[in-house]
Amino acid sequence: MIFEEKLNEYIMRINAEIEANFTDEDCLQRVVYDAMRYSITAGGKRLRPVLSFAVCDMLGGSLPDALRFGVAIECIHTYSLIHDDLPCMDNDDLRRGMPTCHKKFGEANALLAGDGLLTRAFEYLADFGAYKDVTPQTVLKVVFEIAKSAGCAGMIGGQIVDLECEGKENVDEKTLNYLHNRKTGELIRVSALVGALAADAGENEIKAVTEFAKKLGLAFQIQDDILDCIGDEKALGKPIGSDAENKKTTYVTLLGIDAAREKASALTSDAIRALEIFGDRAKFLKELALNLMGRQN
Amino acid sequence: MIFEEKLNEYIMRINAEIEANFTDEDCLQRVVYDAMRYSITAGGKRLRPVLSFAVCDMLGGSLPDALRFGVAIECIHTYSLIHDDLPCMDNDDLRRGMPTCHKKFGEANALLAGDGLLTRAFEYLADFGAYKDVTPQTVLKVVFEIAKSAGCAGMIGGQIVDLECEGKENVDEKTLNYLHNRKTGELIRVSALVGALAADAGENEIKAVTEFAKKLGLAFQIQDDILDCIGDEKALGKPIGSDAENKKTTYVTLLGIDAAREKASALTSDAIRALEIFGDRAKFLKELALNLMGRQN
Repeated sequence: MIFEEKLNEYIMRINAEIEANFTDEDCLQRVVYDAMRYSITAGGKRLRPVLSFAVCDMLGGSLPDALRFGVAIECIHTYSLIHDDLPCMDNDDLRRGMPTCHKKFGEANALLAGDGLLTRAFEYLADFGAYKDVTPQTVLKVVFEIAKSAGCAGMIGGQIVDLECEGKENVDEKTLNYLHNRKTGELIRVSALVGALAADAGENEIKAVTEFAKKLGLAFQIQDDILDCIGDEKALGKPIGSDAENKKTTYVTLLGIDAAREKASALTSDAIRALEIFGDRAKFLKELALNLMGRQN
Repeated sequence: MIFEEKLNEYIMRINAEIEANFTDEDCLQRVVYDAMRYSITAGGKRLRPVLSFAVCDMLGGSLPDALRFGVAIECIHTYSLIHDDLPCMDNDDLRRGMPTCHKKFGEANALLAGDGLLTRAFEYLADFGAYKDVTPQTVLKVVFEIAKSAGCAGMIGGQIVDLECEGKENVDEKTLNYLHNRKTGELIRVSALVGALAADAGENEIKAVTEFAKKLGLAFQIQDDILDCIGDEKALGKPIGSDAENKKTTYVTLLGIDAAREKASALTSDAIRALEIFGDRAKFLKELALNLMGRQN
């Protein structure tokens, strides 16, 4: 199957699982279900669940279980975007070409919808009757690993460092790496990890796919910085130049656009090299990495 | 052992576990650890972990495991207070006699400290190596039950209905019950449930302790409404009359103070009656229910 077909098939399965789990609820607190559904069905690349699914597929594991792990991570990713967009954080009005959650539902409802998505991720993860092949031990390990990567040593830690860097003039590359390896990198790394756990992978395989995901995550962020600078607003679904406007240090402001491109490209090569042990089985993941380099949004 | 001694012993064990798990962290995102620690060590009655611990103790179960379950619930309770106090929610300056988390650390850090506590609760819960006697199946069930009770069908749902009721003149008792059975009731119910699960309790025992906790939770809320009306500000650590000022419908505004007291007292009797099957073993829990009725904060 060619790459695009396979990617679309993965995304269709992910979106179907999300649709089935975020339905309208006729109750007094209906608005919070509406707000969660609004944000999680707003599209997006589904990179994290695609990674879980593709890694598990490569390793011949249980796909419905990897799908579940990946969709839980997508819930956490979506909650983090809702909270990041709030007025006390980035104060953004648009996300993927649509009003942000708080613009549509108000601040309090958006705050609670974010909390709701984070909580739902763990309820959904721990629903053992819904799995096909994995053991309770594996599911518990997945809960632990996802929570750790989403927490203060991981994603939230990166968000905090991002806030601390705001308005600072001399943020260095080491700090920028520290920030992004956590803020976006950790969830991307754990997405690959849980795909491997759904396949009961060995240590070497786990090491290889997480190394791949770490390099991919940083390349992805650098590409984001480049697109914020020279991207197409329509394709991005948000105004460009917001980093410059907020006087944010990015890989582009720090290295210049050419060196930033080179760094992203080198990281992509490193990511692909990490998959060598899998030979031809890694074809999809390698193409995914190359594809993310060429993306417009 | 007399009631107060036993209660203090429980609370000391709970606080020691919290202190050991919320230490200073010397890293770039240090402020989020400081903010979490500030809020979770600010005292409070520790009602939820006390319930988990006491139920497990009554049933002869594994106390270190019940402690772990209960402390995770306390993390979730604390995150909900931090988010509830935020300007877009209740906009409160004081909590337990101290500045609220956002007054001390700023809004963005408080938002993320709340997110961090919620995420940490699940990381801590899923850390299977830290348990003594429970199976992975039991831990997964506990993760599931806690997430469900903290989510949109539970605590968050109650917070949403609370927001929806704000400023409305004709909130009826049915809606008020719906709200509080979720906003405060669900976490109190699940605290008792997980204490029973740590003791591998049977169906009848689980039914009895959760019935107890449900009645106790609603009595607790009514007592809160009464204290907000006639309590002592110093003992409460916050100004009284805030409900009236915010034009909130409470059990006191709805029923009057005497009928509210009667309702709380009747619910406490119901709670105690639910424990009959345990005979003398339920002495502590019964005294706890009576004690909560007489509290000043």
